[in-house]
Amino acid sequence: MASNLTIDADRLWSSIMASAEIGKGSRGGLRRLALEDADKEMREVFARWVASSGYTLRVDRMGSMFARREGREPGLAPVLIGSHLDTQAAGGRFDGILGVLAGLEVLRTLDAAGVETRRPIEVVNWTNEEGARFVPPMVASLAFAGKETVEWALARPDKEGTTLGSELARIGFAGPVPVGGREIDAYFELHIEQGPKLDAAGVPVGIVTGGFPTRGMRIEVRGETAHVGPTPMPRRRNALVGAAHVAVAIDEIGWRQAPSEGKSTAARLDLSPNLPGIISERATLYCDMRHPEADVLAAMEAEVDVAVADCARRSRCEIEVAEKWGFGGFAFDPGLIGLIRSASASLGHTTMDLKSEAGHDAYHMVAVCPSAMIFAPCRGGITHNEAEDMSKADMVPSANVLLHAVLARADR
Amino acid sequence: MASNLTIDADRLWSSIMASAEIGKGSRGGLRRLALEDADKEMREVFARWVASSGYTLRVDRMGSMFARREGREPGLAPVLIGSHLDTQAAGGRFDGILGVLAGLEVLRTLDAAGVETRRPIEVVNWTNEEGARFVPPMVASLAFAGKETVEWALARPDKEGTTLGSELARIGFAGPVPVGGREIDAYFELHIEQGPKLDAAGVPVGIVTGGFPTRGMRIEVRGETAHVGPTPMPRRRNALVGAAHVAVAIDEIGWRQAPSEGKSTAARLDLSPNLPGIISERATLYCDMRHPEADVLAAMEAEVDVAVADCARRSRCEIEVAEKWGFGGFAFDPGLIGLIRSASASLGHTTMDLKSEAGHDAYHMVAVCPSAMIFAPCRGGITHNEAEDMSKADMVPSANVLLHAVLARADR
Repeated sequence: MASNLTIDADRLWSSIMASAEIGKGSRGGLRRLALEDADKEMREVFARWVASSGYTLRVDRMGSMFARREGREPGLAPVLIGSHLDTQAAGGRFDGILGVLAGLEVLRTLDAAGVETRRPIEVVNWTNEEGARFVPPMVASLAFAGKETVEWALARPDKEGTTLGSELARIGFAGPVPVGGREIDAYFELHIEQGPKLDAAGVPVGIVTGGFPTRGMRIEVRGETAHVGPTPMPRRRNALVGAAHVAVAIDEIGWRQAPSEGKSTAARLDLSPNLPGIISERATLYCDMRHPEADVLAAMEAEVDVAVADCARRSRCEIEVAEKWGFGGFAFDPGLIGLIRSASASLGHTTMDLKSEAGHDAYHMVAVCPSAMIFAPCRGGITHNEAEDMSKADMVPSANVLLHAVLARADR
Repeated sequence: MASNLTIDADRLWSSIMASAEIGKGSRGGLRRLALEDADKEMREVFARWVASSGYTLRVDRMGSMFARREGREPGLAPVLIGSHLDTQAAGGRFDGILGVLAGLEVLRTLDAAGVETRRPIEVVNWTNEEGARFVPPMVASLAFAGKETVEWALARPDKEGTTLGSELARIGFAGPVPVGGREIDAYFELHIEQGPKLDAAGVPVGIVTGGFPTRGMRIEVRGETAHVGPTPMPRRRNALVGAAHVAVAIDEIGWRQAPSEGKSTAARLDLSPNLPGIISERATLYCDMRHPEADVLAAMEAEVDVAVADCARRSRCEIEVAEKWGFGGFAFDPGLIGLIRSASASLGHTTMDLKSEAGHDAYHMVAVCPSAMIFAPCRGGITHNEAEDMSKADMVPSANVLLHAVLARADR
């Protein structure tokens, strides 16, 4: 196999810059929430790119788009490359997008060089990876892995109560293809690191060994409505105050574990009635905790229970952890990691082994097939922010590593 | 004048119970936000009651409804009785409603007894007293008193950006009558206490001597969006956490003054983007502080400034008190208070002098004419809550005091 094969950096960069024009945010980034009009437009552009390069496109019932370059043996399970084209509400130009468009660039590079592969190679754009519009994030790969039903996933509502399924139909991406249930040989995902390590160390390629153990939780606070004026302090049960105590406690738990890379976030707070003249009776707080060591994460989680009891006492509200979920805490496939490591070595790139601290569709694909991730540097670690940035030079090494790792696997 | 004249308690109670059917909340109270369809329906019912009793109805440009019973000398400035028919998002059946419908009952009682008065008497239903839909509360009496222009008041938006003026037009209550600018002889407002004192002491009539000094403030918190996962704790500037620190501090300031009847409330919190996967960059917190002594309130306010600086340091956000407003801290008219006191005495009712801790349209009417308020007991002090309650027996004494105080003034 041609070990001097390289992606066309200008072509990939111009694809990413074309994407950066669709759903532009007010500060140079992107606001391309899943299944909104900008996402529809990006999907249509991607579909045109796929068609003009001669690949077949299949859209499944979750709206995930699979572009396929045929292999010499079409009956073999394909190698899959993927990520997502949706963004956060105030997101960057690279998060997810790099992975999908680098996948497309891999296919185009193979065409330009006249390289055939034994196995088919597919590139997927997963629907609603970010979860910025429909909760949970990574919902399409979740359904692909059979962890939830398609019906459940299609019924996820946004804040206005509009379902994912109805929005897919509205924008014309409710495809006919069954979700999952077919053999995939391997899954590769290239992504910006979304942390500062590679950029700080000047290392171009991150080899992702697994996912940070992560716990999410929904905390419910119940108080009682009352007038903000005459109601004596000892009679108040202000759900906003109850939730504020919890948010501060959650933040402090994260700070105590900061030296060992722990994090915790009070991320979203919904209040009712949330009006100036009336004390709120209900608050829902969504929290997120991460730590590289599962036992430390469990200890952080136990601290939340203690804090919740204390916050309830201080605010005179009822507070409970109503729901918990988790991901991460697994290892990616050693075989694929080996392919990434040797591709990096043969291309002469230094690498750093690290764990992913963010969730990715690859987390669910681990349950489907051997899976792995490659990280590219991300300027200053800034992400989920319109200022998210990388240079073309930051992008090229990891995209070439993806090319060669995929190529090696596809000829297996 | 007939000192044995009394209101028809059954008629007044049945009016209030008819109102309690319009915009019923899920838990026995009312959800009749200003200018929503239920408010429209209540206004139409009120207009029918006014017409069927033979009073003239005039609606001003702010949608405030003035029912007029003519006096022997129609050229004299009228005595005005008023309050509001709109409610909180989860409000009670009496807050505001008692005052308007007791005003109507005063007119009907005079008719039934064939009593003429020298001055006209008018009853007003003020638009958007609660401020639950359009901020600020008491916006119609604010404009009536000339403290803001009608144009400014009509442009107030609700959370969806719909203006008060367009909603008035939609429900057919954008009246032609100029707002304010005419002489009013005196203003009386009967209201439930919205605090526990009368109920606890078993005293049927509260004589309101003035308003608690009150300060409201809008606090702006600016952080930065970032991924909830990989972003190291020392790089985070979570606006939700900044606002949570402030909310806890505001609550604690209120607790420190609780023994001397001080209160403070973190009442409303708006966050952006407020999503599970991204740290919020912006928070707006609305706070409210009240204390019977103006100098203590000023000290509480100074504590906020200290707390804000501390919270900014702890959350690494920029935090500022962006806007302040105030009301209360005045005394009601001694002449009208004297009329209320002698009416209570001649009817044999015990009274308690107290200050209003909630805002009322009477606060703005102080700038227009001699004004005063009467309080009726409110079960357990529960208000801005669907469980707000009073009995018919709780209602009768204060309504009769209103009748006789108004009658005395109208014959002046």
